Amino acid sequence: MNVVATVKDMQARADQWRRDGKKIAFVPTMGYLHDGHLALMKMARRHGDILVISIFVNPTQFGPQEDFERYPRDLPRDLKLAESVGVDVVFTPSAEEMYPQNYQTYVEVTEVSRPLCGARRPGHFRGVTTVVAKLFNIVKPHVAVFGEKDYQQLVVIRRMVQDLNMDVEVLGHPTVREKDGLAMSSRNVYLSSDERKVALRLYQSLMKAQELVSNGITSAAEVLQEVRSILAPDDRLVIDYAEIRDPETLEELDEINGPALLALAAFVGKARLIDNIVLTPRS
Amino acid sequence: MNVVATVKDMQARADQWRRDGKKIAFVPTMGYLHDGHLALMKMARRHGDILVISIFVNPTQFGPQEDFERYPRDLPRDLKLAESVGVDVVFTPSAEEMYPQNYQTYVEVTEVSRPLCGARRPGHFRGVTTVVAKLFNIVKPHVAVFGEKDYQQLVVIRRMVQDLNMDVEVLGHPTVREKDGLAMSSRNVYLSSDERKVALRLYQSLMKAQELVSNGITSAAEVLQEVRSILAPDDRLVIDYAEIRDPETLEELDEINGPALLALAAFVGKARLIDNIVLTPRS
Repeated sequence: MNVVATVKDMQARADQWRRDGKKIAFVPTMGYLHDGHLALMKMARRHGDILVISIFVNPTQFGPQEDFERYPRDLPRDLKLAESVGVDVVFTPSAEEMYPQNYQTYVEVTEVSRPLCGARRPGHFRGVTTVVAKLFNIVKPHVAVFGEKDYQQLVVIRRMVQDLNMDVEVLGHPTVREKDGLAMSSRNVYLSSDERKVALRLYQSLMKAQELVSNGITSAAEVLQEVRSILAPDDRLVIDYAEIRDPETLEELDEINGPALLALAAFVGKARLIDNIVLTPRS
Repeated sequence: MNVVATVKDMQARADQWRRDGKKIAFVPTMGYLHDGHLALMKMARRHGDILVISIFVNPTQFGPQEDFERYPRDLPRDLKLAESVGVDVVFTPSAEEMYPQNYQTYVEVTEVSRPLCGARRPGHFRGVTTVVAKLFNIVKPHVAVFGEKDYQQLVVIRRMVQDLNMDVEVLGHPTVREKDGLAMSSRNVYLSSDERKVALRLYQSLMKAQELVSNGITSAAEVLQEVRSILAPDDRLVIDYAEIRDPETLEELDEINGPALLALAAFVGKARLIDNIVLTPRS
């Protein structure tokens, strides 16, 4: 496994692989890898001859009041984990390599970036799409894998790829969960053991919502009322949003007559956690 | 010479050329080709094994009050001219192929897009950078050639390519002029024969400015005063802007102590014309 830190080196390797007819699979990450990341890498491994991951805590997708500084980092451990799943190259640029002085170009997806996390984290998706566009130009992948836990991010990236005619196949991987259902996240490290139990309410409310919908409830308001009562019966969890939206356009839905995204964001202690499910009504 | 209308077809050809080790050179145009365009193509021809041009009047770079509808078009003539300089493929997509329903992604370069034409044509450079990013993803060129007549556009595109790590070499070609000095432009077709004579003032003022600077004048204000007096001694020409700026950052200059961009935009009849020179003081 090779560790590459410069754009020039990474592009030269990608060019050579492409000349050799190799298929490049790519998983961008912010590091502090967990089993969710490793599942994406295993999936990517099956879709390419060469597996590249990036580890880059991207400053432009964090707001000024957010957790960029304290976001967990552990490169030596990440490298061991990456090697264990067959990663060929880890691209780990510095912030200066990615955003040199005078940097001033941004990629922005408008409509699907607006609701949900886009509304609560101004500039977040602009930071995400810009860095992913850069990484695609640097790694030159044929296929890239993203987790469905960041559901809106996946929708936004698919939209960017289609709109800008990027010749990259984007694959989503189902959310990987702990045994009790908590969605894996690097930010779970912020949780105390008490908060860890409270955080489980997100998964519990998603399951309850699917149960209601399976039982024939079609009113989004009714489902959301139940979700909110499970999430926040006390102030140890503060709901940031709980919304039901179209899984592709992310437009708000009043009635659940087909697949419907239930997306949650909540603060538990110092952690802001997100989770989601695509609810499917009984047929 | 082949004419290609779909993104998919164009990308497949580009992939094959790249697999075959061919170098792809690209000239994006809005058609209605003149000798300026043909000079860019001849330059590109020397830099690649395969020469692709695009002909696409890009709606997103025109303002609502601008000349998108009446912009001159003549595809049969363009194809003959392209063939005469050895173009291999002409990519001519429809507007629907480039901007399908639900399109919502934009590439924006901030600082260098703001002054000059950026200040007078809101959204213009966002339209340019977005379509060029798309065209680069579709044609997959190793090298692309742009005219220096659109000087700010060249600066903006170079900035985008560098910032987004696009692996494309951007070459500028000196402005091609008529015998009397008028910069070639598809929009010159809007000029009556009287207006054609008035339009020559742009070139005349550029030449006078260089003469002043060669004679040791370093005050930008002094040069601009002379430029304005040549451009608009009567109301047959209306100055849109006449400014002296740093050739790379496009920041305004008060003193001309090194290369300095003199950029002009002016209305003559129905035409908005631009021209520029990089003034060089005596050493």
